Amino acid sequence: MAESAYEALEQRFRRISRIAHMLSIGKWDEAVCMPVGGGAGRAAALAELASIRNEMLHDPALPQCIAAAEGMPDLNPWQQANVREIKRIHTTSVAVPLELEEAYNLAALATEQAWRQCRKDNDWNAFQPLLARVVELTRQRAQCLAERFDCDPYEALMQLYQTDFSRQDVDEWFSVLQAELPPLIQKIMARQQVHGHIPISGNFEITKQQALSRQLMQQLGFDFQHGRLDVTHHPFCGGVPRDVRINTRYYEHDFSEAIMATIHETGHGRYEQGLPGDWLEQPVGQSRGMAVHESQSLLFEMQIARSKPFLTFLQPMLLQAFAGDSDTSQGFSLDNILCLYREVKPGLIRTSADEVTYPLHIVLRYEIEKDLIAGNMTVADIPERWDSAMQSLLGISTQGNYKDGCMQDVHWPSGAIGYFPFYTLGAMLAAQLRAAIDRDCGALDTQLAQGDVSTITEWLRQRVWEKGCSLTSRELIESACGEALSPRYFLQHIRERYLFEN
Amino acid sequence: MAESAYEALEQRFRRISRIAHMLSIGKWDEAVCMPVGGGAGRAAALAELASIRNEMLHDPALPQCIAAAEGMPDLNPWQQANVREIKRIHTTSVAVPLELEEAYNLAALATEQAWRQCRKDNDWNAFQPLLARVVELTRQRAQCLAERFDCDPYEALMQLYQTDFSRQDVDEWFSVLQAELPPLIQKIMARQQVHGHIPISGNFEITKQQALSRQLMQQLGFDFQHGRLDVTHHPFCGGVPRDVRINTRYYEHDFSEAIMATIHETGHGRYEQGLPGDWLEQPVGQSRGMAVHESQSLLFEMQIARSKPFLTFLQPMLLQAFAGDSDTSQGFSLDNILCLYREVKPGLIRTSADEVTYPLHIVLRYEIEKDLIAGNMTVADIPERWDSAMQSLLGISTQGNYKDGCMQDVHWPSGAIGYFPFYTLGAMLAAQLRAAIDRDCGALDTQLAQGDVSTITEWLRQRVWEKGCSLTSRELIESACGEALSPRYFLQHIRERYLFEN
Repeated sequence: MAESAYEALEQRFRRISRIAHMLSIGKWDEAVCMPVGGGAGRAAALAELASIRNEMLHDPALPQCIAAAEGMPDLNPWQQANVREIKRIHTTSVAVPLELEEAYNLAALATEQAWRQCRKDNDWNAFQPLLARVVELTRQRAQCLAERFDCDPYEALMQLYQTDFSRQDVDEWFSVLQAELPPLIQKIMARQQVHGHIPISGNFEITKQQALSRQLMQQLGFDFQHGRLDVTHHPFCGGVPRDVRINTRYYEHDFSEAIMATIHETGHGRYEQGLPGDWLEQPVGQSRGMAVHESQSLLFEMQIARSKPFLTFLQPMLLQAFAGDSDTSQGFSLDNILCLYREVKPGLIRTSADEVTYPLHIVLRYEIEKDLIAGNMTVADIPERWDSAMQSLLGISTQGNYKDGCMQDVHWPSGAIGYFPFYTLGAMLAAQLRAAIDRDCGALDTQLAQGDVSTITEWLRQRVWEKGCSLTSRELIESACGEALSPRYFLQHIRERYLFEN
Repeated sequence: MAESAYEALEQRFRRISRIAHMLSIGKWDEAVCMPVGGGAGRAAALAELASIRNEMLHDPALPQCIAAAEGMPDLNPWQQANVREIKRIHTTSVAVPLELEEAYNLAALATEQAWRQCRKDNDWNAFQPLLARVVELTRQRAQCLAERFDCDPYEALMQLYQTDFSRQDVDEWFSVLQAELPPLIQKIMARQQVHGHIPISGNFEITKQQALSRQLMQQLGFDFQHGRLDVTHHPFCGGVPRDVRINTRYYEHDFSEAIMATIHETGHGRYEQGLPGDWLEQPVGQSRGMAVHESQSLLFEMQIARSKPFLTFLQPMLLQAFAGDSDTSQGFSLDNILCLYREVKPGLIRTSADEVTYPLHIVLRYEIEKDLIAGNMTVADIPERWDSAMQSLLGISTQGNYKDGCMQDVHWPSGAIGYFPFYTLGAMLAAQLRAAIDRDCGALDTQLAQGDVSTITEWLRQRVWEKGCSLTSRELIESACGEALSPRYFLQHIRERYLFEN
């Protein structure tokens, strides 16, 4: 039987997905296994794979192949959705000339490598020209994409990480958050000052932390036949859906971060493991963008693991594993664990921020990114702008402290501009999904207090994970939640947890 | 400045080497890290990369590109050698039609996977038809290669793993070994029976074995900035020259195997790390074939580590690390360690064989392989032939015991026919190189008794490692040893160590 136009298209994207598989494993290995001397060779090898993938997408025969598949009358809905996703990937890819894309990739790679040292040295002067070049090339890419998609250049960058949300949507939601959160933070901090809590100190063996991390991953349904847990410098979830690589960072003096980081990454991991098995090598079988991905990790971390019932389940495990190694074993009471895991406090560093102050870190970056891409400011203006925004949003100065200020994140040096807003859209979606689950499944506190997340994950599997990209992001959210995305549930969750609970 | 034809050729092979980098890391990860459920996806991804590489080699524009580079008058000797190596790789690759190569790769992959279970189950009947298919496709490949290179089909296969040695060379050398070794084994065993030795038993923590393995790698000059040590099911050396992955298997009841396996693999690893730094992404910068590679690992293991002076250095380390965990701490005397690490005893399994009986395992496989490819026997004849050869060469029957007989090795199911003879050529070359080093550098026993291998490795670096493929295999051996390869030094080494020493 002759291969249909649709089958030929699938075959092309099957090849591309296999290259993506090797890229993903190569990057995981770089972060987790690779000795330092292997860096240059690996960077070259990964760049080569990326450019082979890009060349496949730029194949002049591909548009005709897509058009022929699109014209087939008997495609089923998944096949139709697959063609839609393929078309989007293709259009995005060819909108940027190969040479520009390559120049951007090389600059981003070099700047990310330089950033590691510059950040350590707090050396803004060395870093600034490198970042300026990355921003300039990103602006050029944004321009190409904006022309092709007839939209605002910054919005065109956003679409690379998560489709279906306009800059206007985000502007509107963030203005709500920016208005509501600062007074909320004041109230919450005042309330927490009354309670107070005991900081836990001690020396907590990494192997014990790893064992408990693994146990919790199993409790949360992570499939170790199709994944593993490793040690790294920055927690992340990598690999491929049938081989998910969770990576956690451990501190001997503090177990609390690693435990929550593992749970967070397990949310990402279960999403990947739950993607539709028949479609893993096609675009329609992939996860639905960065905001949806982050909603899964934040649902696991913020909505499940930091809830009172789940912490009730977790507390005896922490007590058993770590109290003996602590100088402050009275800190292991349920009340104190609740306080520790739900402390709200403005700080310099985004990745260590609590869920209430976190969106303000995002708003700050989002506003700067928009102005950089629009040409309303230059890279040289960033430190001053950062300092004044930190002062006004969180009441903290970062003057002269570049490394804990505008140089703290890997995103900009690595060329990922337009990515930040989706952390907060993910937090919004996580709260909204949790509300939908409560509505559909009734009270889950008893189950969570036993560490049982099966009702939640079954709901997620059917409505999010198994959908892959068969629905658009908007359709996915609306069909799961019964309404469009909104910051309402997130703010409601914050008020309930931090002002009314207990 | 316009790119020259030679530079264009380099650029093509730079790309190919970067794909090879990812293939190597992907295979290492599969063996060492990958959870079992990731197997199917990884196999597909690796096959895709291999076929991309193959397509690059089959590019119809390549022959002209090679010819143009070849015609350039001002190439330096390394560039000339690079073109020579490129030409060989290209000719070899295009000699086999893409479809045949793909059918062979798929059959080999499926048969290797099936072999793991069939071997466990001792199930020759299930295995035989699969192997027959692999052998048939290998014969077809051999035929294509033989026509292109105008040589014997089996010899054409040999050239895939190590150039420059004819079937006639190997026939001649193996007939010497086959004549000399059996009576030698009888004499050695009789001599060893008089001495006797105490087997060491105990429970030796894996972490202690790993620590000592690592310490020995450092002692032997392995560069951990450009490599690492991991745990695996079968010891091997993988990765790339700037990121060498040594892998060792550990047994809790026996430390002796892991220690020697690590040293063996360190020999491979130092060769890779010592390759010419400016040429790592070109064919001329690669190692000089499988026999030369094995000569380095066997030089480290057999010529250095199992020598009396080095064992004198090693014995106190073993005593300190393991005697406390042993039921037989008197077994840690130098005399006993010497006996343990130099015991000669015919056995079923090639990979556990001592250096004296090992070549007979190879002769057996070599004779069968030649007849399979020539069509003088079928796969169905293998078990009987194996049993009778084992009886005549080593006095052991394997009747009905397929798993420790003709199903013990991964080579045939994975399609590697023509590979085995080079293990023994490697052993011959290791002995010959050691003799050349002794001749050039004088007595090294004092250095080795202090664990100092720097004189030896410096010699190897200059004469073997840094040469890459700039010389042909014959040139490399003759320039290093001052004469052509011969089994004389190996036999002399065996006699000296096992009949005269001590």
